[in-house]
Amino acid sequence: MNSPSPCDLGQGAPPRPAVVGAEWLIDADGCREELLRDLPTLTRLCERLVAELDLHVVGAPLWHPFPGPGGITGLFLLTESHLACHTYPESGVATFNLYCCRPRPAWPWHDRLRELLGARRVRVRSVTRGGPGRAGEEAAP
Amino acid sequence: MNSPSPCDLGQGAPPRPAVVGAEWLIDADGCREELLRDLPTLTRLCERLVAELDLHVVGAPLWHPFPGPGGITGLFLLTESHLACHTYPESGVATFNLYCCRPRPAWPWHDRLRELLGARRVRVRSVTRGGPGRAGEEAAP
Repeated sequence: MNSPSPCDLGQGAPPRPAVVGAEWLIDADGCREELLRDLPTLTRLCERLVAELDLHVVGAPLWHPFPGPGGITGLFLLTESHLACHTYPESGVATFNLYCCRPRPAWPWHDRLRELLGARRVRVRSVTRGGPGRAGEEAAP
Repeated sequence: MNSPSPCDLGQGAPPRPAVVGAEWLIDADGCREELLRDLPTLTRLCERLVAELDLHVVGAPLWHPFPGPGGITGLFLLTESHLACHTYPESGVATFNLYCCRPRPAWPWHDRLRELLGARRVRVRSVTRGGPGRAGEEAAP
């Protein structure tokens, strides 16, 4: 059940709220519809990401192709946190979440998603998880 | 393998890039350390969220307690998209991602995480998935 965790935060109580990770939100559009319904393509893409960023998968990933015009969802539990993939073939959209508890080098999302999904546009946002909030964010006192 | 998908986007090609979902990023700190290591507590919390928002879980959720001082990761594949939970007991932090392809009513994150994890502060951010990018975001032309 257990596996080594690169996310252990060391000894002692850090100041609160602590920064616990970084998350990337990737939204690609203009992708080729048939590729967004193709499980081997999506599996290959995610496995390449995992290998190139030296991530570590815990157990088997969850993949679910939705019926009819639906897309595919994939979830990977990582020792570094998680990777999620959702596709929307009718819209030509694929989205990814990569949440890591340790800094990782940038991955060439634009190049890879153009190459593997035919994406025309790729948007990459990053957010810090944990850490102090900012004005305007909903937060209880 | 398949199940009904509330995420089908209907007939016809919507304008691109299409909005495909909403995601909430929740970061709670000041949580009770022992509760962040307690799988039944986290399971109960996620199951309550799923029930109260009328979400639909596909297959069995993935749960992974990390060894030693590590926390717990949980991933739920939903017909609505996904729910992810990570805990960091030494920092008193728990984070959640709830990604839905359809609008959902607000969940009382502050009240629930105070009640179930002893959280002292809860920060809720929301982002739109898909949709047009904004100036300042990294996007390939």
